[in-house]
Amino acid sequence: MSAAPHAVDLIRKKRDGGELGAEEIRFLVEGAARETIPEEQLSAWLMAVFLRGQSLAELDTLTTAMRYSGEVLDHTGLGRKTVDKHSTGGVGDKTSFLVGPIAAAAGLADPMISGRSLGHTGGTLDKLESIPGYQTQLSIAEMRRVLEKCGVSIVGQSRNLVPADRKLYSLRDRTATVESPYLICASIMSKKLAAGLDALVIDVKTGSGAFLRNEKDAQYLAALMVETGERAGTRTVAVLTDMSQPLGRFAGNWVEVMEAMALLGGERDPLSEDLREVSLTLAGWMIYLGGKARSAEAGRELAEEKLTDGSALRIFRAMVAAQGGDVKALDGGAGFHTPKFRREFRAMRSGYFVSADCTKIGWAVQRLGAGRERAGEPVEAHAGLEMHVKLGAKVEAGQTLATLFAGDEARFAEPEQLLMQALTIGDAPAAAPPLVREIISADNKDSYLKTQSRP
Amino acid sequence: MSAAPHAVDLIRKKRDGGELGAEEIRFLVEGAARETIPEEQLSAWLMAVFLRGQSLAELDTLTTAMRYSGEVLDHTGLGRKTVDKHSTGGVGDKTSFLVGPIAAAAGLADPMISGRSLGHTGGTLDKLESIPGYQTQLSIAEMRRVLEKCGVSIVGQSRNLVPADRKLYSLRDRTATVESPYLICASIMSKKLAAGLDALVIDVKTGSGAFLRNEKDAQYLAALMVETGERAGTRTVAVLTDMSQPLGRFAGNWVEVMEAMALLGGERDPLSEDLREVSLTLAGWMIYLGGKARSAEAGRELAEEKLTDGSALRIFRAMVAAQGGDVKALDGGAGFHTPKFRREFRAMRSGYFVSADCTKIGWAVQRLGAGRERAGEPVEAHAGLEMHVKLGAKVEAGQTLATLFAGDEARFAEPEQLLMQALTIGDAPAAAPPLVREIISADNKDSYLKTQSRP
Repeated sequence: MSAAPHAVDLIRKKRDGGELGAEEIRFLVEGAARETIPEEQLSAWLMAVFLRGQSLAELDTLTTAMRYSGEVLDHTGLGRKTVDKHSTGGVGDKTSFLVGPIAAAAGLADPMISGRSLGHTGGTLDKLESIPGYQTQLSIAEMRRVLEKCGVSIVGQSRNLVPADRKLYSLRDRTATVESPYLICASIMSKKLAAGLDALVIDVKTGSGAFLRNEKDAQYLAALMVETGERAGTRTVAVLTDMSQPLGRFAGNWVEVMEAMALLGGERDPLSEDLREVSLTLAGWMIYLGGKARSAEAGRELAEEKLTDGSALRIFRAMVAAQGGDVKALDGGAGFHTPKFRREFRAMRSGYFVSADCTKIGWAVQRLGAGRERAGEPVEAHAGLEMHVKLGAKVEAGQTLATLFAGDEARFAEPEQLLMQALTIGDAPAAAPPLVREIISADNKDSYLKTQSRP
Repeated sequence: MSAAPHAVDLIRKKRDGGELGAEEIRFLVEGAARETIPEEQLSAWLMAVFLRGQSLAELDTLTTAMRYSGEVLDHTGLGRKTVDKHSTGGVGDKTSFLVGPIAAAAGLADPMISGRSLGHTGGTLDKLESIPGYQTQLSIAEMRRVLEKCGVSIVGQSRNLVPADRKLYSLRDRTATVESPYLICASIMSKKLAAGLDALVIDVKTGSGAFLRNEKDAQYLAALMVETGERAGTRTVAVLTDMSQPLGRFAGNWVEVMEAMALLGGERDPLSEDLREVSLTLAGWMIYLGGKARSAEAGRELAEEKLTDGSALRIFRAMVAAQGGDVKALDGGAGFHTPKFRREFRAMRSGYFVSADCTKIGWAVQRLGAGRERAGEPVEAHAGLEMHVKLGAKVEAGQTLATLFAGDEARFAEPEQLLMQALTIGDAPAAAPPLVREIISADNKDSYLKTQSRP
C-alpha cells in the first residue's frame, strides 16, 4: 500500500459507482499519455466510466488532465481574441470554411484544429487536402505565422497535442466505449481547450445523420461541453442544428470546397441556403462570445456583412495560400477535379421528399470514395454526391434526386442501394425540421445537466 | 462485415445489456485461450459482464467453452465414479486432506486439482508442498496412476488445462473484475468440469473470512454453480459453511497438514471439532452424490466410519508416498518443521470472545510468511498460527488467545497488530454461528437464482 494510487483500485472504485478524486484521475490520464498504465486497465476503466458515468467534477478533472497531457497552444501577443467552432460530425458540413474566415474578418483569430473523415461523416482535413498543395500538418510556429497573417488557420492535430486523447480514443474505438457523453465531452473539450480558446461554439448535430440521434442525449452532451468549457474559463455555447439531411448541396471533398467558395463569393443557391443560415448563426455566436458584438443576433449581422462584402473570401484564399495551397485551383471550378463518372439517382415515384436517413447518405458518400473505412486509408478528392432536393420538396417520378460522383463505375452500386433505403417519398407534404433547434449556454445548461440518469 | 463476429460488436452488445449467443461467447473464449483477441478488448468485455451480468444460458456457454479451451481429464476405465470438493477459499481450511481420502475409502475417486495461497486465504498446494518431496505438478498419466492406486490425487493445475481461465483470471486480477458471481462461477466450474467429475460438492464460505461476505451474494454464487454443474451433467451441491473464524486449530502450511494427520489418526480435539464436522458433512455429500449412500446423512455416517477406522489415513499416506512425499516426515510431529520463533498473543481484558475479523486473521497468517503477496513468491512451510479459543469462549485477561509461528522475529509486529484489530472481547456471552448454514442443491437452486438484480 504505497502512496501512489494503483490503477486496479481506481478501476474498482469507478466500477462500484464511486467518484474518483483529482489526483486519481490525473494518475490515469498520465498513465495513458505516458503508456505507464497498460491498455487492459485503461479499457476496464473506460468501460466502467461508460456504464457508471462521471460527476461534473470528475469530468472537469479528466478534461483538464487530458488537455495538459501534451503541449498546448499559447496565443499571447497575437493581439486578437481566439475563438473556434467545433462540430460533432455531419454530412456535407462545410461550415468551417465559412465561419473561420468570417470570425477572422470580424477581428478575431480562429486556430482551428480539425479532424478527418470518420464513419459516415466527412472530415475538414480531407476536404482541404483536395486543394493541391494545402498543408494540414503545420508546426506550432507555422500555424502562428498563418494566424498572424490571416486570422485563421485550419490544421490537423499535431502528435504532441493531447496525447492522452490519442491513446484513449484508439482504445475506445476498439473496446466499444465511444458513445459515452462523458468520454465524448472529455475528448472534444480537451483538444479544443488545448488550442487555447477564449470562446468556443459547438455545433451539436441532431437528427438522422448525427452520431447522437436521441435528442435528450444530444442536449446532455451539449450541456456537459458548455459546463466543461465554462469551468475552464472558455466562453462556450452549444448550438443544436439539424442533420436530418446533408447540409447544403454537396457532400464529398472537393465539391464541398467549391460550394463554400461559391457562398464566400456571394452566390445564393436555394440548395445552399441551409448551410449559409447555419454558418451565419454559428459565426454570430463566435463573434458575440469573442466580444465583437453585443449579442448573438448582432454577431450574425456582422457575420453576414463579412460574408457579403467579400472579406471572408479574401481571408479564406489568403489562408489557403499561406498553407501552401494552389489558389488558382479554387478558381478552376468544374475544370479541376472533375470526377471520371457521374450517375443520376432518380425518384421511383411521385410525391413528397418526406424523410431521409442521413447516416445512410453519409455512408453512400463514404462508399463513393470520399471517406475511409479505417484510419490511414486515402480518400478520393473528387468523389461525392450532389443533392437536388431538400426535405419537403415535391418530386416527380423520374426526377433526379441526387447525382453521384466516383472515380470508378463499380463504386456506384452500393451507394445507390443506400440511397434507395435512405430517401423516402411519401404521399403527403411534410415540413423540414428547423435548422437551429436549440441554444444551450451558461444560462440554461444546468436544467439539462439534471436530466441524465445512469445508463 | 464478414460472418465471423467482431470483438468490438460483442463488447457493445454486452455493454448495452444484451445476451450474447453461443457462437459469440465461444469466439471470445477461444480468442482468450489462443490470444487472438487483445487484452484491452477482453477486459472491456469482462467489465461489461461485471456490470451487466449474464443470463444462465450465457454463463453455461461461457463455462463450457472455457472447460474445453484446453485438455480435459477422462477417467474412462477407472472403474470408480469421480467426485470432488471445491472451496471458495478460507483460513485454516484443510478439509481437502480429509474429504479426498474419505471419498476414496468409500469407493470413489477424487481427482482434486487445487490452488495456491491467494490473498488472505491459504492454498492446498502450498500446504502439501510443506511435506518434503511431495510433487504437485503431475502429468495426466502420473495423476491417473495415483488415482488408480489410491483413489485420490491432489495436484496443481497443468498449463494445458483451461487456458482460457488462466488468461481471463490474470486479466480480472488486473482490471478489478474478480468479484463478479458470473465470472467466479465460470472460472471455478470450468476447471472443476474439465477434471471430469460425476459429482461435485462446493464449500461456499460465508462470514468475515469469506471472499463473499454478503450472505445473499454467497447464496447466489452457490446457486449459479449448482445450476452450471447440473447443466453440464455433474451432480452438484453447494454447502454454505461458516468462516467467521479459522476452521480448526491451526492456520498455515505444515501445521495444517499436522492437524489433518491428527484427525485422520483418530484424535479428537475440541479446537478441531469444527473442522471435523464440516469435513464429514462435505464428505457425506460427496459419497451420496457419488452414489455410495442413499442420502447425505447416510453418506456422513459412512464418512465417519472411514475416518474412524483408519482407512482414510492409510489412503492419505499412500497418496503422499505415490506423489513422492516423505511419509516419515508426517510421523515426525513437532520434531519436523519446528518454527524458529513463537510468540504468544494474549487477551488484554477479560470477557467473551464475541467476534473475529477472519480476513484480518488470514492476512496475519499470510504476513507471518505462510502466504504470498504476489503469484510466484515462496511461502514458509513452518509459518502460521494456532488459535487457542473459539468464538463464544470465556477468556481471562492475559490468557493466550493465539500462538504465532515465524522464521524471523521481525515478522511478528504486523500480524500482532492485525490480531489486535481482528479479535474482539466483549462483556456478554455470544453464540458461535452455525457451522453449516445452508445446502443449495438442484432441488432449491431456482429460488435463489431469482433473487439477483443488476449491480
